[in-house]
Amino acid sequence: MLSDHIQNGIETAKLVWSRLPTSEEGESEEVNSSKRSDGTSVESLDYEVIENYAYREEQAQRGRLYVGYYVGVKWFFALLIGIGTGLAAVFINIAVENFAGWKFAATFAIIQKSYLAGFIVYILINLALVFSSVFIITQFAPAAAGSGIPEIKGYLNGVDTHGILLFRTLIGKIFGSIGSVGGGLALGKEGPLVHTGACIASLLGQGGSTKYHLSPRWLQVFKSDRDRRDLVTCGCAAGVAAAFRAPVGGVLFALEEVTSWWRSQLMWRVFFTSAIVAVVVRTAMGWCKSGKCGHFGSGGFIIWDISGGQDDYSFEELFPMAIIGIIGGLLGALFNQLTLYITYWRRKSLHKRGNRVKIIEACLISVITSIISFGLPLLRKCSPCPESDANSDLECPRPPGMYGNYVNFYCSKDKEYNDLATIFFNTQDDAIRNLFSAKTIHEYSAQSLLTFLVMFYTLAVVTFGTAVPAGQFVPGIMIGSTYGRLVGMFVVKFYRKLNIEEGTYALLGAASFLGGSMRMTVSLCVIMVEITNNLKLLPLIMLVLLISKAVGDAFNEGLYEEQAHLRGIPLLESRPKYHMRKMTAKEACRRQKVVSFPRVVKVANVFSILRSNKHNGFPVVDHGRNGEALVIGLILRSHLLVLLQSKLDFQHSPLPCDLGMGSIPIRHNFSEFVKPASSTGLSIEDIHLTPDDFEMYIDLTPFLNPSPYVVPEDMSLTKVYNLFRQLGLRHVFVVPRAPRVIGLITRKDLLVEENDDSATVELQSTSSSEI
Amino acid sequence: MLSDHIQNGIETAKLVWSRLPTSEEGESEEVNSSKRSDGTSVESLDYEVIENYAYREEQAQRGRLYVGYYVGVKWFFALLIGIGTGLAAVFINIAVENFAGWKFAATFAIIQKSYLAGFIVYILINLALVFSSVFIITQFAPAAAGSGIPEIKGYLNGVDTHGILLFRTLIGKIFGSIGSVGGGLALGKEGPLVHTGACIASLLGQGGSTKYHLSPRWLQVFKSDRDRRDLVTCGCAAGVAAAFRAPVGGVLFALEEVTSWWRSQLMWRVFFTSAIVAVVVRTAMGWCKSGKCGHFGSGGFIIWDISGGQDDYSFEELFPMAIIGIIGGLLGALFNQLTLYITYWRRKSLHKRGNRVKIIEACLISVITSIISFGLPLLRKCSPCPESDANSDLECPRPPGMYGNYVNFYCSKDKEYNDLATIFFNTQDDAIRNLFSAKTIHEYSAQSLLTFLVMFYTLAVVTFGTAVPAGQFVPGIMIGSTYGRLVGMFVVKFYRKLNIEEGTYALLGAASFLGGSMRMTVSLCVIMVEITNNLKLLPLIMLVLLISKAVGDAFNEGLYEEQAHLRGIPLLESRPKYHMRKMTAKEACRRQKVVSFPRVVKVANVFSILRSNKHNGFPVVDHGRNGEALVIGLILRSHLLVLLQSKLDFQHSPLPCDLGMGSIPIRHNFSEFVKPASSTGLSIEDIHLTPDDFEMYIDLTPFLNPSPYVVPEDMSLTKVYNLFRQLGLRHVFVVPRAPRVIGLITRKDLLVEENDDSATVELQSTSSSEI
Repeated sequence: MLSDHIQNGIETAKLVWSRLPTSEEGESEEVNSSKRSDGTSVESLDYEVIENYAYREEQAQRGRLYVGYYVGVKWFFALLIGIGTGLAAVFINIAVENFAGWKFAATFAIIQKSYLAGFIVYILINLALVFSSVFIITQFAPAAAGSGIPEIKGYLNGVDTHGILLFRTLIGKIFGSIGSVGGGLALGKEGPLVHTGACIASLLGQGGSTKYHLSPRWLQVFKSDRDRRDLVTCGCAAGVAAAFRAPVGGVLFALEEVTSWWRSQLMWRVFFTSAIVAVVVRTAMGWCKSGKCGHFGSGGFIIWDISGGQDDYSFEELFPMAIIGIIGGLLGALFNQLTLYITYWRRKSLHKRGNRVKIIEACLISVITSIISFGLPLLRKCSPCPESDANSDLECPRPPGMYGNYVNFYCSKDKEYNDLATIFFNTQDDAIRNLFSAKTIHEYSAQSLLTFLVMFYTLAVVTFGTAVPAGQFVPGIMIGSTYGRLVGMFVVKFYRKLNIEEGTYALLGAASFLGGSMRMTVSLCVIMVEITNNLKLLPLIMLVLLISKAVGDAFNEGLYEEQAHLRGIPLLESRPKYHMRKMTAKEACRRQKVVSFPRVVKVANVFSILRSNKHNGFPVVDHGRNGEALVIGLILRSHLLVLLQSKLDFQHSPLPCDLGMGSIPIRHNFSEFVKPASSTGLSIEDIHLTPDDFEMYIDLTPFLNPSPYVVPEDMSLTKVYNLFRQLGLRHVFVVPRAPRVIGLITRKDLLVEENDDSATVELQSTSSSEI
Repeated sequence: MLSDHIQNGIETAKLVWSRLPTSEEGESEEVNSSKRSDGTSVESLDYEVIENYAYREEQAQRGRLYVGYYVGVKWFFALLIGIGTGLAAVFINIAVENFAGWKFAATFAIIQKSYLAGFIVYILINLALVFSSVFIITQFAPAAAGSGIPEIKGYLNGVDTHGILLFRTLIGKIFGSIGSVGGGLALGKEGPLVHTGACIASLLGQGGSTKYHLSPRWLQVFKSDRDRRDLVTCGCAAGVAAAFRAPVGGVLFALEEVTSWWRSQLMWRVFFTSAIVAVVVRTAMGWCKSGKCGHFGSGGFIIWDISGGQDDYSFEELFPMAIIGIIGGLLGALFNQLTLYITYWRRKSLHKRGNRVKIIEACLISVITSIISFGLPLLRKCSPCPESDANSDLECPRPPGMYGNYVNFYCSKDKEYNDLATIFFNTQDDAIRNLFSAKTIHEYSAQSLLTFLVMFYTLAVVTFGTAVPAGQFVPGIMIGSTYGRLVGMFVVKFYRKLNIEEGTYALLGAASFLGGSMRMTVSLCVIMVEITNNLKLLPLIMLVLLISKAVGDAFNEGLYEEQAHLRGIPLLESRPKYHMRKMTAKEACRRQKVVSFPRVVKVANVFSILRSNKHNGFPVVDHGRNGEALVIGLILRSHLLVLLQSKLDFQHSPLPCDLGMGSIPIRHNFSEFVKPASSTGLSIEDIHLTPDDFEMYIDLTPFLNPSPYVVPEDMSLTKVYNLFRQLGLRHVFVVPRAPRVIGLITRKDLLVEENDDSATVELQSTSSSEI
């Protein structure tokens, strides 16, 4: 059918293409789906190498043994990611707890003498911590600001954001979040931990950081972009697992929220990583229990165990729970909208003025936060301690220097406590624990909760988007549990006879706010169950999440999607837009002019075409025996740039280079095509050619992707969308309808057993060795 | 580009195709991916109806409101599936527990006087129960035999097995498993519960059972096969959730094991169903705790709570745990292989001889099982009770008629117990609970455990494949926990000073055997955690599962895959075969001859072509304006059969029917194309045509799938495989390479905002209303 020399060229292209690594920003998934989906399995590194006589030597060493080694390395890296992320999480937690613990201890000690002095010390310590954080971010690692989850999501969707996975970002993230969380801002350390996990994974995948000379040879295993993305998926799951001590939640988070596609082999590796994290964290916590970690101990890692709380629920309670869901949806959607506006404003006007503005902004917010969290409890009258219950371990007021409920703060008597200080003048983890706590009915007044809700919500909105590492989980839980507890108080008041715990409502409130803001469902549900260690509330959490997500979806998109849009990260949603149903593939690309290359192309032409447009991929068209045109493949801009720069493949003749015997000399080390990690790669401006060079030719055949996916011109765009998203593509060719069908592939054709054609394979390998 | 009349025809085809339901065995996923992937979203029922003037009236009612209603119905059905499966599970459990409880109570009462009489009564009760089960299956619901999981997996993969989702199968499954499990055979009720859930879901999706006149109008909502399959996925998850009280495990089981593809919208609905099941089961158990369910109470639903057991582990223990993993892999693979041989033999020779043989076989196995489980403990010498521990609730021997450890059976003294009877002469749930139990070191002798292991393993292998509903989970757990406990005994003996519980090793053994046999990983892990209610053992369970799966994979495939192969269910694995890398699309289909239809085809030709081959899909080729051939779509065999049978679309003229004005009269009610649930559908033999009919023509345009997915002829087969599997296709056209590229679709083209082209849409709708 095809003329021989084209067939020959295409064959070669296939062989070589399979070895080409990725080298273009955002191009990677297309490369993957071309290179790797020709062998989706994890072990398919050596795809089609077998046929390739140019690599016969390499083939010898890259047999089944190499595949085994390769798989082994993947698992080993998963192990390393687990250990690394676990240790990073432990380090951050110990540091935060110690800074915060020391801060509160110092403040409490001083306020015994003077509240003003305590106030100043408190403000200064917070300011110092926040300043350290914002200084690190602005001066050293600007990509470490924010939560990092939208960027990671984008990366796994195929879109690189500059610098998010560098070594300096990792360092900035770790130390920056210690400062920002320790400094008492209204943000959490969970999002940054996900980013941390992803950075660790990416650094391992790249083989270390070349800039900091941390790239030992034994790490240089993964050339394929797909393998690196797989590792980053593991890293994300590890981050969640480490942040919440929720291994299953981590796996589901990676599955539901971050990856755009998924394979069961990867799932198991992700699970393994999460479990390793769980082991590491648990071991470290066991070690800390003996008091070796300073203030870290009873507090620290999030586990708000509410197993002592409400076990059962009556049908009457479903109504207030539904109300919590609605509130969560409304407040969550409002949060997304407000943060969107504020971030937009910050990016447009504020942050353009330089780092100094960013630093001043963060410090200002720190001071305001300190004033509010110290000042407001001062204005609040103390309440008398409740009658102590013999069964309860709770002391009122709590002993000085300890964690717990019933904080005595600016109270006249010993047997009093300040309910606003209990939640406000505390680390966030302790505040949440106090809000979730059972057997503490009537601890908080509605007025205090409402004050806290309004103030903290405002602080969280304002803090979002400052130049410090910032997660939204813990603030979300704080906000949610506050109004949840408020609703719980009303329920206790009106449904008197039931065994109701306000803490249970606080938990549901937290779930509802997260659902209303982040719109995750399954993973959030599992995370909430894992952190509260109570399987019995699962159906209630689901009910609340369902409602809050539905309410939130009526207004806007999820927090991460909104932020990704704002940052210009083009995420493909899981479902095509409604209007796509009415469009065809041709209509979608009608604005473009298609620029194609011939098989052998003049260097001058390549140069001018690359200069004159910004397309990332070009069709290559050749002529068949009868002179008819045939599309023989896709060439990437990035690969063309490498070819132009290296000049190795330039030839004088405008004829295909394989006319003699079909053997194309391969002059490249394929690692040349690997895109340097997290950099922007080559640009046409970097290429410098002599006039002589311009007169030369290149045969593009060896560097083609010989069979990109194609769709007929009048295929519905939704169908194209699904193809694109399900296979993680970057380019699809829109072609005219075919004149005939050569064959139909059905399920049965794909179930051929290996032994069916072992004879054929035998034959092929014999014939190829004769060449 | 295209000639107008073709374009017109294709447009019409698109409109109409989108309304065509599925009607062919195994065809369904292709239809889905054509119809539904043009709008993957759940709400896309009315895809492209907007453009279709033939349905303008329907469009009016099928607006956004209808979509809302449709989504609402889906959730409502998910709720019903949850409630239905939960109630079915409760019913089966109560029935089994009561039968078994009454059986053991009667036997124990009689053996106080005569062991022989007790023996006979025991055998007879078991025989009666097993007979009832095998009688129901053979006479009434043959499709209800076995676990049903391979068949459901096949169904969700796109392959219908006859009769697996009928109402009678549901009834047969429920009552059959009560008999077989209550009758003490070495099988479980968990697999059948998954099948039960799937049946309930399928019946709801079909709108009830027409045969039994249980098909109210309000149930007739889902015409699309995809929606039905989604419901069945929910049903599977519900089954697992009900069987193990493990909602998260159920979701992951559905995700990992049964579905071949997955969407996040579905995931959330599956989760909802599982949670409903959890609520229903929990409510029912709460109600039963007050003693209203007879023997059902402390026993019953699987929850082998081992939270009182070993909490910590030392590194030294990892070695014996790895050994457990290896044993699990070996025994699991052996189990798969033996059951494969036995099932093969049964199908080939034994079961062909009719139902009487099946009944005799099952009864024989029942008698043998009874003899072994009653007789072997008789031969075992009783052991003296251990010194009673004040802290422990365990009594030795257990009080008569209760559940628990230390069964006094054929012992001479009061303070003695029979360790073999404790595990053998008991319901399986109790035996597992006893094996898992903590604080019972040295309860079992190695000899007893070994005897039990060998005998039970043999029984499980022999019982597998008899004509009764049979799950493999519980027998697997029994086998695994036996050798696990054996290893635990050695560990206790050799590592003396550690705080080791044999029960923990039993749990790990159970996980290892299931991993070695079923090769599930993540879902199994979560299920084990959920049923044992102990999150702390998660990393150990993962370690063991990882090893056992790896060892098992070295020998053969998983249990369900092996069985599916044997039954001729063509499941596509998640990764393409190694040899596919060397094949092209064209090579895969070279054995076929492609038969295509012209656009307007003579009835006689259709009839003879359908008669002469068994293809399920045919390309339709038309001629463009310049006489060039163009593939305009795919027509399904099943749709052709409906057309032939109804004769509505026959026309005298060999010209396209839309030459005047382009309006194609639609004479069909589209539900005609719906395949009757779980039947084989129309066959060419059912069609009776007159000689006049043979001279007529049909215009196929309205019934085409106008844009099936296409691949170029020399695309690598692995790439085709991924396309096929990721999109859940049934047919792919292999076409020649395209002569030119009309456009390139990139990520940016798919991110067009709706408002971008709202003007266009406006225009279109205006122009269409002018016609």
